[in-house]
Parts: sequence; C-alpha cells; structure tokens
Amino acid sequence: MNNDFPQLKNDLFLRALRGEEVERPPVWMMRQAGRYLPQYMVLRKKYTFFERVETPELACEITLQPIDELEPDAAIIFSDILTVPQALGIDVQMIQGKGPVMGNPIKTVDDAFSILAEDVPGKLSHVMEAITLTRQELNGRVPLIGFAGAPWTLFCYMVQGEGSKDFNKAKAFLYQHPEASRHVIRELTTATIDYLQAQVEAGAQAVQLFDSWAGLLSPEDFNEWAMPSLLEISSAIKDVPVILFAKGAWYALERLSFKSNAAALGIDWTITPEYAREKTRNEITLQGNFDPSRLLAPIPEIEKQTRRMIDRFGTRRYIANLGHGILPHVPVDHARAFVDTVKEYGT
Amino acid sequence: MNNDFPQLKNDLFLRALRGEEVERPPVWMMRQAGRYLPQYMVLRKKYTFFERVETPELACEITLQPIDELEPDAAIIFSDILTVPQALGIDVQMIQGKGPVMGNPIKTVDDAFSILAEDVPGKLSHVMEAITLTRQELNGRVPLIGFAGAPWTLFCYMVQGEGSKDFNKAKAFLYQHPEASRHVIRELTTATIDYLQAQVEAGAQAVQLFDSWAGLLSPEDFNEWAMPSLLEISSAIKDVPVILFAKGAWYALERLSFKSNAAALGIDWTITPEYAREKTRNEITLQGNFDPSRLLAPIPEIEKQTRRMIDRFGTRRYIANLGHGILPHVPVDHARAFVDTVKEYGT
Repeated sequence: MNNDFPQLKNDLFLRALRGEEVERPPVWMMRQAGRYLPQYMVLRKKYTFFERVETPELACEITLQPIDELEPDAAIIFSDILTVPQALGIDVQMIQGKGPVMGNPIKTVDDAFSILAEDVPGKLSHVMEAITLTRQELNGRVPLIGFAGAPWTLFCYMVQGEGSKDFNKAKAFLYQHPEASRHVIRELTTATIDYLQAQVEAGAQAVQLFDSWAGLLSPEDFNEWAMPSLLEISSAIKDVPVILFAKGAWYALERLSFKSNAAALGIDWTITPEYAREKTRNEITLQGNFDPSRLLAPIPEIEKQTRRMIDRFGTRRYIANLGHGILPHVPVDHARAFVDTVKEYGT
Repeated sequence: MNNDFPQLKNDLFLRALRGEEVERPPVWMMRQAGRYLPQYMVLRKKYTFFERVETPELACEITLQPIDELEPDAAIIFSDILTVPQALGIDVQMIQGKGPVMGNPIKTVDDAFSILAEDVPGKLSHVMEAITLTRQELNGRVPLIGFAGAPWTLFCYMVQGEGSKDFNKAKAFLYQHPEASRHVIRELTTATIDYLQAQVEAGAQAVQLFDSWAGLLSPEDFNEWAMPSLLEISSAIKDVPVILFAKGAWYALERLSFKSNAAALGIDWTITPEYAREKTRNEITLQGNFDPSRLLAPIPEIEKQTRRMIDRFGTRRYIANLGHGILPHVPVDHARAFVDTVKEYGT
C-alpha cells in the first residue's frame, strides 16, 4: 500500500466503521457526485460517460465536486459498477434516457463459460490512477471510498443486456443454466476481489460493494447466488473496512451481519432502524437509510426527518446516508440540508 | 346481488379463503389471462388493449381462456387497474413496449383537487357487464374474482404519468403537497369501494386489491399513505372475501393481518412461508408466492419447487399462486406444470 498520502484530518467515517465512540455520526450520500450538481452537468455536457470514468483527472475532479460543495465526511471515487463487466469483455454503452446497454450480453452457455477473470486490475488501471490522484488531491480532508458492483448484480446486467425492472432474462438463465451461471458468478467474484484489492493498494481507505438487485431474489436464491460472493469478497479484503449494501435483501441482514467480515451494512428505507438494529444485535455499523425521494420534500421536513433517523439509529455504529443513490433532480440546497442536519446533530 | 347464476361446482378457492379444511390447496395465477397464451395473442393482434378491456364479450372470452387451457381453481376478470383513474378523468394510453402513459397526469395542487369520485361504477359499467357475462359463461366451473388497484398504486400512476422504477415524481408530490395527495387518495378510496361493491353486485365472488407499488414506501409512509385505504376498503366490502396484495410490504404483514378484515393476504417471493406464517400467526389465508421467473426453469424444477412451496405454507389457509403476474414469455407447458403440480399435491 502506498503510504505517501497526506495525513487524514477527518477520520469520523473510519471511526464509525470501527465502532468507536464519535461526537456525531459521519455523513455521505450514495451517488453524491452526480447529476443534481450543476458543476457535474458542465462536465457531463463536455465529455461522454466513459470519458468521465476513464480519465483519471476528470474522475478526480468529479469526486471532489460534492466534497467542495457540501463537505460530507467521505468521498467515493467517481466510477461505475459496469467497469468489471467491461474488463471481462462485455461491451457497455451508456445511452442517455435509457441507461446501460450491453452490445454482447451473455446469451448461451458458451458465452457464459467464455467469461474469464484475467488481469482485471490491469484493464482498469485508470480507476486505480483516479483513486491515487484523488487521494492526493483530497489532501486528507476526508477518507476516500472505493467500490464495485456485487457479482449477482453484475450478472444481472451481463445477461439481461440492459437495465430492467425484474431482470427476468437473467433470472431465467440462472434457473436454466445453473452451472454456467455459477461459473460467471465465480469469475466475477475473483475479478471483484482483485479489483477491490487494487483499489486499496491505490489508496482507497474503505470499499463498498453494491448488490443493487439483491432484492429481486427470494431468500433461498439470495443464499445460493448472492450471499457466497458477498461473504468471500468481504473476507478477502483485509486492509480496509468493507461496507456491504444488498439493497432489498431485508431478510439477509441477520446472516450478513454474523457471517461476513464486513465492517458495515447498507440499509434501504424499507427497513426500520429498529428492525435493522435488532437483526444485527447492535454489533455492526449500519449505513443509511433516508428515502432518496424525501430529499424532494421541503427543507424543514428534510431536517426533521433526518434528525428522526439519527434518533432512531443512534449515533454510535452509524453512518448517515441515503437508502439508495441521490436522484438527479434534487435541489443542491436540499442535499445540503441533509448533510448539514447530520453535522449539526446534537449541537 | 344477482342470485340467478349457475351453481358453483368447485368451491375450493372460497373454502380456502374461509379457512376451511380442503383436500388440497386451490391454485390460480395472477395475470393468468395474458400474453403467454397463444389464444390471447390472437385477440391482442385484432383488438387494442382498451377494446379488449371495454368489450364485455372480449373480456369474458379472455377471462375464460386460461380456465379452458389450464383449469385453475379460480377465474379473475380480464381488466386493468387503471380503469379507475380513467373513470376519474385521467386519460390512459397503453403504448406497446412501454406500458401505460397518462395524457393528463396530476401536476399541480389544482389538478389533484379536481379529482372527484363521481359515479365510478356508472362510468365502468362495461366491467360489471363483463363480470355478469363471465359468471354466466363460467357456468359454475370455478369462482370469479373481481379486482381493483389500491389507491396508493393508482396515485403513483396518476402523478408519475407512466410506469417507473421508483415513481419519484409521485413520491415528491406526496411530500410536497400532502393535503392535495390526501385528497386524491381519499377520492380513490371512495371510488374503489364503489367500484368493488358494483363488481360484487355484478357477480364477483371474491375481490383482490393490488397495491403493486407498496414496496416503494418506507414502513412509516406505508402506514400513512397506503395502509388506511387498504383497511377501509377491506372493511367496506362485506359480502365476499377480500384479498389484499401489498407487494413488497413485508414489514406490514403483521398489521395487515390483524387490523384488516381481509380474508387473505398476497405474499411475494421475497417473503419466506415461515416468516409469513409467523407474522400472521396462522390466522389468515395466505396466497402466493412462486417467483414468476422460476416458471422459466425446466419443468422438473418447477414441479419440485412448487411442491416445496406447498410443503412450507401447508395445505390449510393457503392458495397457491405466483408472487406477481405471470411473465409474457413463459411456455404454456410450464404454467400447466405449476397448476398441475398443485392439483396433484398429496395424491
């Protein structure tokens, strides 16, 4: 690991991940570098999505935009979960108004067995460069989070070929070709471990694994197809804290908290703080779970609901965040009200 | 109520709703009249969606197609949840490949307050005619289910103006204009009660309320915006059993079972049978919860998983069904394997 980085000035986020006493909960927002920020929209008009992701200077600049604007307690590298499928040979186009579209999705058993996790960090070296650069540019203001999509969620896109409400093509493939599916998920698991370890070596001080489509699976299917990768990846990353966010998998909170080596679990807004604390027996840090649409409410309501969320989670072993990514049309002042309310909590 | 209907020969479904002992669980499938059936596709090519919905003879023919083809234990009238918004003045177009699009969605507080539940049954008399005709044509083979969309779900479409993954426009409206939203939901509740009562008078022998987007709400928002209508509607319909299906609202099972007068609760596939039975203390009939994508698995796997589902729910107070509507590309033989496995259970 590169140790020549500027000294960290705000370690609230890392202390909360370690379960230490904190003066107030740290706060950041999933997708905090994004379309709700006017300064991001300027770059979005000048460069394509993958130019922004693949140019370390642009990814760095975008990562820092919300840090300058809102001063949350952590930065998350600007990138995309579909970088790993790209490194595995899947062609990904980002179509405006539609989202990601794969030119060569997995359609056959042969397609599936052709997926091999070979030198993924080498193919994604631009992400590692962006992390190292951003870590320098952050100058110790806040820690930098790396991330990856979880294998099940990546499998969904790689088979479905595009975004979907139910990813039924991906699920059908799973049920029709379990061995081929297992191969893909195994390669994705290897690729993700290599990728996250490279991110840590490049300077990531924590990593988050996004299993955005976990909630499409029944509890049994989750245990078979999603859980093993989450456990394996979180065990393999030893040098920094790992946050697991299995969106929609309320039924798995208990098992994820006891079986994984994760430092924290992400919680979506359909889970009450009380339920999450009970199922995890207050033994793991929880991160979440403000309903992203609620940032469209009037500011006094945002302030009130944010305070109420912290009251219910408690200040220890807690990282204030949204329950999913911030929406594009949230006014910046509303995002600021959320961040500021957490920062002023208890004062 | 019209009592001149042919005598019912198969009352398994109604007995299960009443919690009586049954020789095996009844079975039907949500959206069982639909695109997976070749005979439906013939009519779909000849008539527009609303011609099919609004012509009693066509709606009747379509309702009977799966009864003839698969012989499940209940029929559900072919219609659409968006009939009620239409009766309230919302223009609904069904666009192929996209789904419903509203020409005049609710955008302002004035739009919201202009929504008034006036003579909804009169405006939807074609549905009642279709029910009466279908009840005759069924000739007592199986009971006929009527249905409506739940107010929260209809509100989502009426404000969003189209289908959506997160209905964030609808949720933003809710948070920005709670009084106007409350008005719309109140009118929808009145409209739905009138509509379902008219369906019962026309011959529906049970009714199901579909709250398809319940799972987008936090538990608190569900309690505020969805639950009261579900309770009020299920209390108002006294002459036939009511099934409540609040998809995604796993957190509300306990309250729905104890606070509502519903005969049964629909269960999606993210809820285990054990969890559902525990939360409802085995005191209400449960309906569900086969993962619709699993009908794309090989037939022996469908048979095995269907038997396993019944083993876990038990045969009493149970109606075998999917956890959501059947998918368009399911082979008919796979749907038949599901229905037949339930019918052969225990023999």
